Amino acid sequence: MYHFTALVTCLAILFYSFTGIQVSKARMAFGVKAPATSGHPDFERVFRVQMNTLEWMPIFLPSLWLFAIYIGDAAAAILGVIWIAGRVLYMTGYSQAAEKRGRGFAVQGLAAGILLLGALGAIVWRLIHA
Amino acid sequence: MYHFTALVTCLAILFYSFTGIQVSKARMAFGVKAPATSGHPDFERVFRVQMNTLEWMPIFLPSLWLFAIYIGDAAAAILGVIWIAGRVLYMTGYSQAAEKRGRGFAVQGLAAGILLLGALGAIVWRLIHA
Amino acid sequence: MYHFTALVTCLAILFYSFTGIQVSKARMAFGVKAPATSGHPDFERVFRVQMNTLEWMPIFLPSLWLFAIYIGDAAAAILGVIWIAGRVLYMTGYSQAAEKRGRGFAVQGLAAGILLLGALGAIVWRLIHA
Repeated sequence: MYHFTALVTCLAILFYSFTGIQVSKARMAFGVKAPATSGHPDFERVFRVQMNTLEWMPIFLPSLWLFAIYIGDAAAAILGVIWIAGRVLYMTGYSQAAEKRGRGFAVQGLAAGILLLGALGAIVWRLIHA
Repeated sequence: MYHFTALVTCLAILFYSFTGIQVSKARMAFGVKAPATSGHPDFERVFRVQMNTLEWMPIFLPSLWLFAIYIGDAAAAILGVIWIAGRVLYMTGYSQAAEKRGRGFAVQGLAAGILLLGALGAIVWRLIHA
Repeated sequence: MYHFTALVTCLAILFYSFTGIQVSKARMAFGVKAPATSGHPDFERVFRVQMNTLEWMPIFLPSLWLFAIYIGDAAAAILGVIWIAGRVLYMTGYSQAAEKRGRGFAVQGLAAGILLLGALGAIVWRLIHA
């Protein structure tokens, strides 16, 4: 079983849900009524935090699980926690100014990259040695 | 095996695909040519139904499967059907007016929340008792 | 184990990541600064390639894996490769003009449709014969 990976999956989803709740709050705070998704730069940055996290979910989650299965549960979970930490940093930075989103983005991108390329390497190794 | 959860997964994807087909139809009906995603409020609401369903897929699908694995196939599938029903209600409401999207949204949010928090609780319980 | 399906999953994620990198490049090339996602038609088409690939990820990935589990690893992987090829065709076409996105879209839609409906059929068959 992959209890740690499962736990980190839930935490990542909870964080991602939080970015969605922030969009609802920003809609009210800056008067951007649905279905509009633009109209105020402060709203747009909060919206882009959610959207960018959404964009990374199909990279992160499958890579996390393939890494867990092909390499190990604990290592996957640790990288998953680093990914979430990078995402939190990205969110807090981007909420202040678009220019401040770089560092958190780099951290989460690195963690996701290691998960994806690590899994890919392990899968290829297994296919060759099967 | 998780036959019921697998079945509900397919049904959820079919419904989500349907919201995408509605966007193609709305593009033609309201004259919003790709790559634009705005320009007519009736189109924008149909587009937001698809986008919001997309936003919830990485919450719903992993939560559904973790709930199925850690709690049970049948219970996960029942909550999954409720999620789809809430999504259908959200779609039909939002297609009429932005104000009518609340009830369906609440139903699907509740179902997804139970799946996520139920899975999280069961994972933590297992980790403690492992 | 599902080594071929796992491999194709990584390749699909790599391709999807590539569509995101193209958006970053197009932001700089056409002067569309974050958080904006519109402002120049050439940027918007590149952005829509990424968004549309994102929209299809929750259709493709779960269908691919259910097909692999219920029907077979090799067959799923071959359809997965066809899906990626259709996506590449869609990207190269759409980058040139919105009208040239049709053929690639049809190829990937057909591959994803076979994965989804094939999996659904196999799941229903199992439920009936269980």
